[in-house]
Amino acid sequence: MNGNRFGRLFQVTTYGESHGPAMGVTVSGCPAGVELDEERIQRELDRRKPGQSMITTSRGEPDEVVINSGLQDGYTTGTPIGMVIQNKDARSGKYEPYVTAPRPSHGDYTYSAKFGTRNWGGGGRSSARETVNWVAAGAVAEAVLEQSEYDVRVKAHVNRIGDIEAPDVSFDQLLEHSEENEVRCADPETAERMREAIERYQKEGDSIGGSVQFEARGVPRGLGAPRFDAFPARLGQAMLSVPATTAFEFGLGRDAASVTGSERNDDWTFDDGESHPETVSEEGDPVPVGNDHGGLQGGITTGQPICGEVTLHAPTSIPKTQRTADWETGEEKEIQVVGRHDPSLPPRAVPVVEAMVNLTILDFMLLSGRINPDRLDDRPGEYDTDYHPSSPENE
Amino acid sequence: MNGNRFGRLFQVTTYGESHGPAMGVTVSGCPAGVELDEERIQRELDRRKPGQSMITTSRGEPDEVVINSGLQDGYTTGTPIGMVIQNKDARSGKYEPYVTAPRPSHGDYTYSAKFGTRNWGGGGRSSARETVNWVAAGAVAEAVLEQSEYDVRVKAHVNRIGDIEAPDVSFDQLLEHSEENEVRCADPETAERMREAIERYQKEGDSIGGSVQFEARGVPRGLGAPRFDAFPARLGQAMLSVPATTAFEFGLGRDAASVTGSERNDDWTFDDGESHPETVSEEGDPVPVGNDHGGLQGGITTGQPICGEVTLHAPTSIPKTQRTADWETGEEKEIQVVGRHDPSLPPRAVPVVEAMVNLTILDFMLLSGRINPDRLDDRPGEYDTDYHPSSPENE
Amino acid sequence: MNGNRFGRLFQVTTYGESHGPAMGVTVSGCPAGVELDEERIQRELDRRKPGQSMITTSRGEPDEVVINSGLQDGYTTGTPIGMVIQNKDARSGKYEPYVTAPRPSHGDYTYSAKFGTRNWGGGGRSSARETVNWVAAGAVAEAVLEQSEYDVRVKAHVNRIGDIEAPDVSFDQLLEHSEENEVRCADPETAERMREAIERYQKEGDSIGGSVQFEARGVPRGLGAPRFDAFPARLGQAMLSVPATTAFEFGLGRDAASVTGSERNDDWTFDDGESHPETVSEEGDPVPVGNDHGGLQGGITTGQPICGEVTLHAPTSIPKTQRTADWETGEEKEIQVVGRHDPSLPPRAVPVVEAMVNLTILDFMLLSGRINPDRLDDRPGEYDTDYHPSSPENE
Amino acid sequence: MNGNRFGRLFQVTTYGESHGPAMGVTVSGCPAGVELDEERIQRELDRRKPGQSMITTSRGEPDEVVINSGLQDGYTTGTPIGMVIQNKDARSGKYEPYVTAPRPSHGDYTYSAKFGTRNWGGGGRSSARETVNWVAAGAVAEAVLEQSEYDVRVKAHVNRIGDIEAPDVSFDQLLEHSEENEVRCADPETAERMREAIERYQKEGDSIGGSVQFEARGVPRGLGAPRFDAFPARLGQAMLSVPATTAFEFGLGRDAASVTGSERNDDWTFDDGESHPETVSEEGDPVPVGNDHGGLQGGITTGQPICGEVTLHAPTSIPKTQRTADWETGEEKEIQVVGRHDPSLPPRAVPVVEAMVNLTILDFMLLSGRINPDRLDDRPGEYDTDYHPSSPENE
Repeated sequence: MNGNRFGRLFQVTTYGESHGPAMGVTVSGCPAGVELDEERIQRELDRRKPGQSMITTSRGEPDEVVINSGLQDGYTTGTPIGMVIQNKDARSGKYEPYVTAPRPSHGDYTYSAKFGTRNWGGGGRSSARETVNWVAAGAVAEAVLEQSEYDVRVKAHVNRIGDIEAPDVSFDQLLEHSEENEVRCADPETAERMREAIERYQKEGDSIGGSVQFEARGVPRGLGAPRFDAFPARLGQAMLSVPATTAFEFGLGRDAASVTGSERNDDWTFDDGESHPETVSEEGDPVPVGNDHGGLQGGITTGQPICGEVTLHAPTSIPKTQRTADWETGEEKEIQVVGRHDPSLPPRAVPVVEAMVNLTILDFMLLSGRINPDRLDDRPGEYDTDYHPSSPENE
Repeated sequence: MNGNRFGRLFQVTTYGESHGPAMGVTVSGCPAGVELDEERIQRELDRRKPGQSMITTSRGEPDEVVINSGLQDGYTTGTPIGMVIQNKDARSGKYEPYVTAPRPSHGDYTYSAKFGTRNWGGGGRSSARETVNWVAAGAVAEAVLEQSEYDVRVKAHVNRIGDIEAPDVSFDQLLEHSEENEVRCADPETAERMREAIERYQKEGDSIGGSVQFEARGVPRGLGAPRFDAFPARLGQAMLSVPATTAFEFGLGRDAASVTGSERNDDWTFDDGESHPETVSEEGDPVPVGNDHGGLQGGITTGQPICGEVTLHAPTSIPKTQRTADWETGEEKEIQVVGRHDPSLPPRAVPVVEAMVNLTILDFMLLSGRINPDRLDDRPGEYDTDYHPSSPENE
Repeated sequence: MNGNRFGRLFQVTTYGESHGPAMGVTVSGCPAGVELDEERIQRELDRRKPGQSMITTSRGEPDEVVINSGLQDGYTTGTPIGMVIQNKDARSGKYEPYVTAPRPSHGDYTYSAKFGTRNWGGGGRSSARETVNWVAAGAVAEAVLEQSEYDVRVKAHVNRIGDIEAPDVSFDQLLEHSEENEVRCADPETAERMREAIERYQKEGDSIGGSVQFEARGVPRGLGAPRFDAFPARLGQAMLSVPATTAFEFGLGRDAASVTGSERNDDWTFDDGESHPETVSEEGDPVPVGNDHGGLQGGITTGQPICGEVTLHAPTSIPKTQRTADWETGEEKEIQVVGRHDPSLPPRAVPVVEAMVNLTILDFMLLSGRINPDRLDDRPGEYDTDYHPSSPENE
Repeated sequence: MNGNRFGRLFQVTTYGESHGPAMGVTVSGCPAGVELDEERIQRELDRRKPGQSMITTSRGEPDEVVINSGLQDGYTTGTPIGMVIQNKDARSGKYEPYVTAPRPSHGDYTYSAKFGTRNWGGGGRSSARETVNWVAAGAVAEAVLEQSEYDVRVKAHVNRIGDIEAPDVSFDQLLEHSEENEVRCADPETAERMREAIERYQKEGDSIGGSVQFEARGVPRGLGAPRFDAFPARLGQAMLSVPATTAFEFGLGRDAASVTGSERNDDWTFDDGESHPETVSEEGDPVPVGNDHGGLQGGITTGQPICGEVTLHAPTSIPKTQRTADWETGEEKEIQVVGRHDPSLPPRAVPVVEAMVNLTILDFMLLSGRINPDRLDDRPGEYDTDYHPSSPENE
């Protein structure tokens, strides 16, 4: 309702402004019995963190997470996990000029139009800094998936910066190469060209758009609740929450418009136990030949890889001269947005997209009863005396 | 959760299978005092109804709506509006071959994978017949918006069939021409070419994809609840619920990937009372110059027209020979999907897209308190003796 | 939000006014594979139906339910179950005097205060007629529970009418005797005294309050989601939705105020396989000695019977002279509410209370993964070729 | 769903265990423009805090709240308010004996039955320590109500400890006297007797039950969403979430069972501008004579004071010898629960009950549009250049 909660059974609630005291996220609905510590979450936060390279903002945030609840002896207890990340390097002064003179195409104006006021330092609540919360929550979701009986793996990479497009890459390439370079493109040669392009735009005081492609393997068939909670509908909601997203596609995406049914339809065959390693199925099961459907048919997963893409527009905060209107003085004027901003969003959006995909998948897993909402084992509701990571001897 | 509800304050709950006894939709959260009758809803249903032309399915459904509750003397009472539409022309026999041999890329397999069973006649719950419920609910939403103090108008048209793309059209053209031809494309010349293309694919026993573009005027600024209930996030969920959707875009959409910040950013100026008729603003207000942002900044409406597009893949049910796998017999075999199916979805999807846009807008209007959730007037909670359409004299 | 939906995973949405065309209820989230037909639901509706005896309203409603969706060959399919019950015996004329002169303590005034209007015939949406929807939905819930691997049984009876209180009864007595008499009190002798009292009040043109006691057996331990979705919190919400309820209690209820901790606390012992047949436990499990806690500790079920009680105030519609204020004429005046009204609510509330208890239990069972939300078996998400009640041969 | 969220538009999400690092609460949906600081919240926390007197637990918690987000220059911004309260005085060692040998009637066993594990120190998540979060959120709600155009005031007191009942008190007495004594009973003489009784039970190593009565003044008529979100249903859910609650009543409550319709019904008259100061109405409006209905008719507020009561059972943690069963050793044994526990809950429950009433009322106010969900003024959605507490000069 109010925009600060995501998920239905695996519920994420967030708070925090870019230059406020701290960011915070509460994960409610994490099953008990999941091994978890701050280190694991930190690892993901470090991937998203600012100041990683020349082509990201230079804001110096350690992004250290503190877990305030929900654990006992290194395992989740089923109770909510409260996490806090302090903001350390906020310099609001540079934002004073924009308090009543909104930056073009930023959330400055719309937040004020909605609330009649806003926290203006660093973009306040509209800042992409908020996604630190999402990555923290996504790390918890990933831990649950990893420790479940399912072998779900999610990976994304940057497949486009401006006019530079990456060639198709395999899932193995995604896993192997996407984190090797600062652009996070799984094709090293393309990555280098992308990096150069970003730097060029940065030097010009400009910014550039791009896109992030993701793939999820191991998602069991039968997930999704059509019609309004169809898997693509909820995944789309997640992706269109990512700051600067202007398009979400899955399968053939936008290209499906020009493809015939006979071309796009994926025939059915039987799994022979060999030919369909990428599909979640057992020998003898019907499996689709091909994946033009992107893992989703009728709003429900087929067991094929779930493939999709999000387009992120160019960052709106650019040093290049633009024009704005100051509603306090009534004057139109020139504006140059200086500060510490990313010249292109996809590189740092990769862990954010992965987090949202993990959150969406896990939520559907819990909703379908595939993963027990109360505890990570196969004994729903049966009291088990062997299952006590919380005994005092462990201390 | 279960996929049969849409909306947070304006709540739509649906049921019904393609060949079941009836479709049904309950609208809960409609303010009191809205003039409404079956005729008004019927008008919209008639636009979506099958058998309208040669290029749509020939199934003969009158789609007559009956309102079971929520009205008194022609006005809504604030209580839920229950509507039922009987299914009259169901011929399930033709679907027997697919019971255990799924049609390629249809929901046949995934529904069975999820539920272990399914209503197989006419595609059952996965059928686009369900959207009759959405259009009925959308008609109620449209009535509320129309009778509110806001001048919200939503219109869509088919902007692409296969490789044929319509030129850009103005909102006036949309209003004037999109309902003049059976393709529902606002550019008459393109419409004709689209019609021919659809017929050609139909004759070949094939089908073709396409896309629907929509525009919403008059939506006040300040709507949307970032982060997870950002306007585009909820609109995206709505659009990605539309059967066969594979992409949702707004503003520059996918093209934003190759555009720089300085090109895409929309400068701010002041409304001079003349130059910005398409914007919801008053003289002296800051208004954006241009609308590359598609009416949405930071996940919140700017008062500019909200522009977006959905891509619909080709219908999966085609007479052309395909291959499937029968899980009962264990045999792979050829399949030809005969029946009464649309050769291309966008023409009949236009009223469906409009309905979902109206539902999304109204929901945000109620959530923001712009339209009183209890009754359609400006006297929240104050008891008014003049306000009684329900007096017995009216009977 | 709007009051017409109950349940989180097992979602009930209702509509209908006392004198409108029809009542309707949609059940979304019923697992597939449950044997169900109209007869089963009808059986429960007949228990609630008006005109059963001299001490209930004489309105003649057959209350025939029609199922519009969600079934295939006598089994649920996991898709929403839409049900409609036509209103046949509505005589609104008698309600004209109350349109602008509200009946004392009825919902006439408050509905008008909220919505500025109301459907006034027969009390409109505020009528207890709405509970026909609840009983229909409750019958579906009961069918799911019955066909699950759990042995949940819910029974209620009238334990108080005015000053007449029933003695404590066992669960077996509840099952055996509560439906034998028209008051639905499990103690036959008390039932007769209650019946006489009700008739006496009825003859005096008055009405009388009372209470309904319920007990649920076989509910597994570990259900409930403290803090705000604690089992008693959600059960309380359900019970306080029942028309005319003014109190909800469980365990010792109100009497707990005067009891010490040492008296109320239930010691723990081990189940010896014999002494605790009423508890859901296995030999060797810890079980509570006694049930002063009413089956709920810390907001979660213990496996002991869940015992509670709701108090229902006297019906407000009485022939005895009362005073009201007509807001149309501005005059205060006498009022005598004639019509067909129950002189005491508990007898017909028994099936309503049972329905709400069943709905609450099932919802928690689904939320905890004990019953698979997708289908009623133990094969979550695994596609099973043997599991097809929907094969065409069955037709 | 998971029990850690309360409220629909005014959303409270909590985390924290009794002996965990910190308690935390996020308030999402607070309108912008509300004056707020930590001091205001602290004032309420201090009322709930342990160690206030001899008859409460001696745990020494300063309960200092830190606000991490949602404010600018002392006013709310409409974005979520994240609050953290560190736990300082946790001594878990004393709880070791109960890890596998549950305290009678505590949540020890049920949490383990649900999750297979639990945070056992100090009762973990089942501890009433959690209510510190509720009081913090309630203080925000109270601030919103106070600064709105409505004059809502909520007050509670202890009206029963064991067999000692307070006489009826007026709202003025409630306001004046209930905070004067450590029992929080508005009748000083009764308070003293209650205090003595509590001390006596405490000395005996035992505990005692009691009840809290509340009254809400100034709540406008027309709030509540029957049927399932009826005002009493949601208020009941709130109250039955309060730890140790076994009964919730409003109006005549349980006593309504023995009252006739003619006695209980409240006649209607017209407000003459003088005689009904306790009612929210204007001269000439219909008003009820009397308030046996407790401010609620048909599930909706009438404008009369909302009066209710919750019963709290005796604290389960008592030094008196009890028996338990150790599931690790398989032995039954004696148990004496030493530690720092309240001998009776009502005195410290008073601010908790008030908080939950305030939260419930505000939620309904927002849902009905009476208070603008986006900002605390009467200019829904209209951008106002005068309305900027966030200008940099204020810093």
